[in-house]
Amino acid sequence: VPLREKNLISHIRRSARRSKAVLTGIGDDCAVLRFPPGHELLVTTDFSIENIHFRRAWHPPELVGWRCLTRGLSDIAAMGGEPLAAFLSLAVASDVPQTWVNRFFNGLLTLANKFKVPLAGGDTAQSPSGIQADIVVVGSVPKGRAVLRSGAKAGDQIYVTGALGGAAATLGLLMEGKRVGKAYSPYLRPLPRLAIGQWLRRRAIPSAMIDLSDGLSTDLAHICQESHAGAEIDAAAIPRQRPARDKKPVALDLALNGGDDYELLFTSASSVPSKIAGVQVTRIGLITRSKDMRLLAADGQPRPFKAAGWEHFAQSS
Amino acid sequence: VPLREKNLISHIRRSARRSKAVLTGIGDDCAVLRFPPGHELLVTTDFSIENIHFRRAWHPPELVGWRCLTRGLSDIAAMGGEPLAAFLSLAVASDVPQTWVNRFFNGLLTLANKFKVPLAGGDTAQSPSGIQADIVVVGSVPKGRAVLRSGAKAGDQIYVTGALGGAAATLGLLMEGKRVGKAYSPYLRPLPRLAIGQWLRRRAIPSAMIDLSDGLSTDLAHICQESHAGAEIDAAAIPRQRPARDKKPVALDLALNGGDDYELLFTSASSVPSKIAGVQVTRIGLITRSKDMRLLAADGQPRPFKAAGWEHFAQSS
Repeated sequence: VPLREKNLISHIRRSARRSKAVLTGIGDDCAVLRFPPGHELLVTTDFSIENIHFRRAWHPPELVGWRCLTRGLSDIAAMGGEPLAAFLSLAVASDVPQTWVNRFFNGLLTLANKFKVPLAGGDTAQSPSGIQADIVVVGSVPKGRAVLRSGAKAGDQIYVTGALGGAAATLGLLMEGKRVGKAYSPYLRPLPRLAIGQWLRRRAIPSAMIDLSDGLSTDLAHICQESHAGAEIDAAAIPRQRPARDKKPVALDLALNGGDDYELLFTSASSVPSKIAGVQVTRIGLITRSKDMRLLAADGQPRPFKAAGWEHFAQSS
Repeated sequence: VPLREKNLISHIRRSARRSKAVLTGIGDDCAVLRFPPGHELLVTTDFSIENIHFRRAWHPPELVGWRCLTRGLSDIAAMGGEPLAAFLSLAVASDVPQTWVNRFFNGLLTLANKFKVPLAGGDTAQSPSGIQADIVVVGSVPKGRAVLRSGAKAGDQIYVTGALGGAAATLGLLMEGKRVGKAYSPYLRPLPRLAIGQWLRRRAIPSAMIDLSDGLSTDLAHICQESHAGAEIDAAAIPRQRPARDKKPVALDLALNGGDDYELLFTSASSVPSKIAGVQVTRIGLITRSKDMRLLAADGQPRPFKAAGWEHFAQSS
């Protein structure tokens, strides 16, 4: 069945959650959204491209749709913001079955409904080959309160939410052609940490914040670069995911460099509780004046710590 | 030269116009924008995909970049809005030369600077093949004043800005492998009608408005569908473009069904001047109670008028 634009639009119109924020949704030149007074506008866009960010052989369509939206919502979370609406531009080649597209939308809309984020528009197009999805999320944050990457100061402690490496470990199994059980489901359906980001922002706790999409080493390097600072991380302190039934935590390398965990990494000079919104928060290191990143290994010796996370862009297809 | 994400980001950072609206641009999880009080938020996204919306053999990269942004700004114009910022998600295959990308950005940024619209972010990715660009433009419109497609009423007159068919005529020449002279340049570099849209909205003149991206017949059908009305168009009244030196106007079919003119089509019960912001405005027909569209031909006989404009989606690559 060829992909039909009209089908898609009516599919979205039917399925997208109604929202007080959306005055005019799909079906006009622009979406028109109510905007909360006293707030600033947040905008993020993220591509999900077949054979770069996902593969049809490894990722069921529901997961591709879910993770596509997670990427956008997680960026809003990392600013301490609230999402207003999502927009999807989707290009699909004519040989992609309609069922793939329907299942993709089901996954995306399941997550959208979970966080009450309306899908308020977008664009559809035919792709010459494969699938390209661009997710746009707009949100709001009270004036002057957006949490940037650039505010970390020497002496700030470094914290991370949840546990790391679960997504990379799961992808590793999929790449080996192994079936993954239900226990791995959370790593395939990551939840954006919106409640935690907002909780922290309301209390002005973070000096800098970023979401872990590319892996701890790469995302920490972004904070260091934008804050003109360095960092020292304690390897033993890093919370590593333990996939259920498998009592061993994931390898340190996956926790340091694996991507797609969508946890929050933040710095703070304030006291930080060990649990926020039901999620564990762990101190893993310190912001330093010296601009390099170091990793304290088990032997207590500091070693250079380089950004070695997922650089989708650098991968060959 | 392979496309490098860092090059691109620093290229945008250097080139993008500074704007009072952009508090945090490229280099954080989200862009943070000042939002004018008492306004509603406009959001539009549009794909420009190689071999669907453009061909490298026909379209120089500067024009692809220019037209990519025109599509977004023209949607803001059609709501009577003011653009705040643009975002570009760009996926490029590794065999596309860096010079193509640079020239694409030059075209896009030339138009952005002309309308003082900052490029405030986006995403870059490797494409498995070809070029896919998704442009997002956010804008604002005073509360309750967005001009929708759905407000046309039976008895409203139908107006169009400028003259039609120039873009389709020029593309026809390019497709035949002909060189087009400077006289065709305006059709290759369409200007979004932002000033006209805002002028009309401030005076509450239009009952409905849309931009002509898909062709008059298709875009008029969108207004009729959303307004639950019909239309009667006078073929003789349609302003047809006369490419310079060529004294003949373009064929009626190109004016009726050619796309990419980016003129405004609007309906109104008020009096409308024949020129707005230096651009000719022409009355071409009437909104009717009966829900079909009719074309009054030269013989005065009404004939059925069907949406036959560009449906990029329906084209094969």
